[in-house]
Amino acid sequence: MKLIADNLRITKPEIVRAFETGNPEPLQALVKKCEANGAWAIDVNTGPLGKQFKKGMAFFIEVVQAVTDLPLVIDTSNPDAMETGLSMVKNRPVINGYSLEPRKLEKILPLAKAYDADIIGFLLYPDSRVPKDEAQRYEIAIDLIAAAQAAGVANERIIIDPVVPPLAWDDGILQARAVLNVIRTLPDLLGFPVRTIAGLSNLTTGAADKAKKNLVEQNYAALLAGAGLDYLLMDILNEKTRLAANTADVLLTQDIFSWAMVGSV
Amino acid sequence: MKLIADNLRITKPEIVRAFETGNPEPLQALVKKCEANGAWAIDVNTGPLGKQFKKGMAFFIEVVQAVTDLPLVIDTSNPDAMETGLSMVKNRPVINGYSLEPRKLEKILPLAKAYDADIIGFLLYPDSRVPKDEAQRYEIAIDLIAAAQAAGVANERIIIDPVVPPLAWDDGILQARAVLNVIRTLPDLLGFPVRTIAGLSNLTTGAADKAKKNLVEQNYAALLAGAGLDYLLMDILNEKTRLAANTADVLLTQDIFSWAMVGSV
Repeated sequence: MKLIADNLRITKPEIVRAFETGNPEPLQALVKKCEANGAWAIDVNTGPLGKQFKKGMAFFIEVVQAVTDLPLVIDTSNPDAMETGLSMVKNRPVINGYSLEPRKLEKILPLAKAYDADIIGFLLYPDSRVPKDEAQRYEIAIDLIAAAQAAGVANERIIIDPVVPPLAWDDGILQARAVLNVIRTLPDLLGFPVRTIAGLSNLTTGAADKAKKNLVEQNYAALLAGAGLDYLLMDILNEKTRLAANTADVLLTQDIFSWAMVGSV
Repeated sequence: MKLIADNLRITKPEIVRAFETGNPEPLQALVKKCEANGAWAIDVNTGPLGKQFKKGMAFFIEVVQAVTDLPLVIDTSNPDAMETGLSMVKNRPVINGYSLEPRKLEKILPLAKAYDADIIGFLLYPDSRVPKDEAQRYEIAIDLIAAAQAAGVANERIIIDPVVPPLAWDDGILQARAVLNVIRTLPDLLGFPVRTIAGLSNLTTGAADKAKKNLVEQNYAALLAGAGLDYLLMDILNEKTRLAANTADVLLTQDIFSWAMVGSV
């Protein structure tokens, strides 16, 4: 299970400020910190960026690529901003992402073919609601794959995100369990080793107690790893969660164990 | 996943002393502490007890049952001591345990029928070696079930222990992964919802760094829970591991979530 940093978000005041003042330093310091803490890729969450999309996306991609060679996940709902980003990324980029929403199928999905990019497909209804149960998630996954094939996007380029729910929802814990089952089952169901991704932060939305939030994140991260998740999108600077995710990954993937593998980045 | 305390072991100096002096207090204090920390059952590991087996087992069972109503797991390789214990236990006891070792099949397994007890069956070769791979574990499981059926012990009484290896073994991490797969697969393979148990302490034998030991235990406990383990035998007084095991269990078994469930015993 590879860890992708979700730390670079335009919703954070220091990132907005860096963008507005054109000062790359806080942003670059953050990216370097994420890399030093074991991020396998950086999610560049620029938001839609509005009319400034070209200048905005160029700023983010340039500034980030100036300090890291890690893969980048481009995280914007604006197809024009997405295209700007895709045209600038050095490594194979990851598009974050598409769903059955008609606008996404029409404007975002074709970019995966045009730029030979990986693309994240969300298990959401066309109106962006979260499906109610596991069976509906499978139906949506099949539809997402069919749409990608129709758009000329190879199965190997697709990464499915089953959408981790907040536990605070009435049925959040049932949905969180459905997500684990979906991750485990999807490769068999689809008939090819489809990659999967999950975002951890949503799970504990609204948690007031930091220690309890960490406990839940650590254990859900291990359960996701155990279910076979390929990529975990998370706050890579949360040491407790990161160590849990790394340790579970060591236990599940290494063929020779040494204590030096545990507790390092 | 229910937690069974492995804290009551005759190998501990304070337990030996309590036994030798006939002073029940340290032993009872330990049992009460295990119960207060959420133990679902107590493993009473008396060792073989030698010639004193009757007096010895009677001491342990009486002393423990005087302060708790929890189920007891009777953990001795001495069939006579086992029988003494079984004859004294108030709740349905758990016999710990049998294997394909001829002496165990002959002397221990029949006690499960005689006392209508649950019995733990170890996935070990007849000479007590640990099997080298997953396939051999399945063969042994099938043989263990067949032996139990031949002895008139119902499938419902059997709890399979796939034997967690030390990670320090050359192939320990591969074996630890095989154990997870076996736990997940066994009910389907055997065709009935066989219960499973695993002992956590063996995994980190020889670990010098407490923080790393805890990290590995916490994550393996979550992975065991995710694989569907029914009973985890562990040091219930290790708060970090206990909280991890409990939290994973909440995430995997509860239908309604509240933060009050997290971080409590």
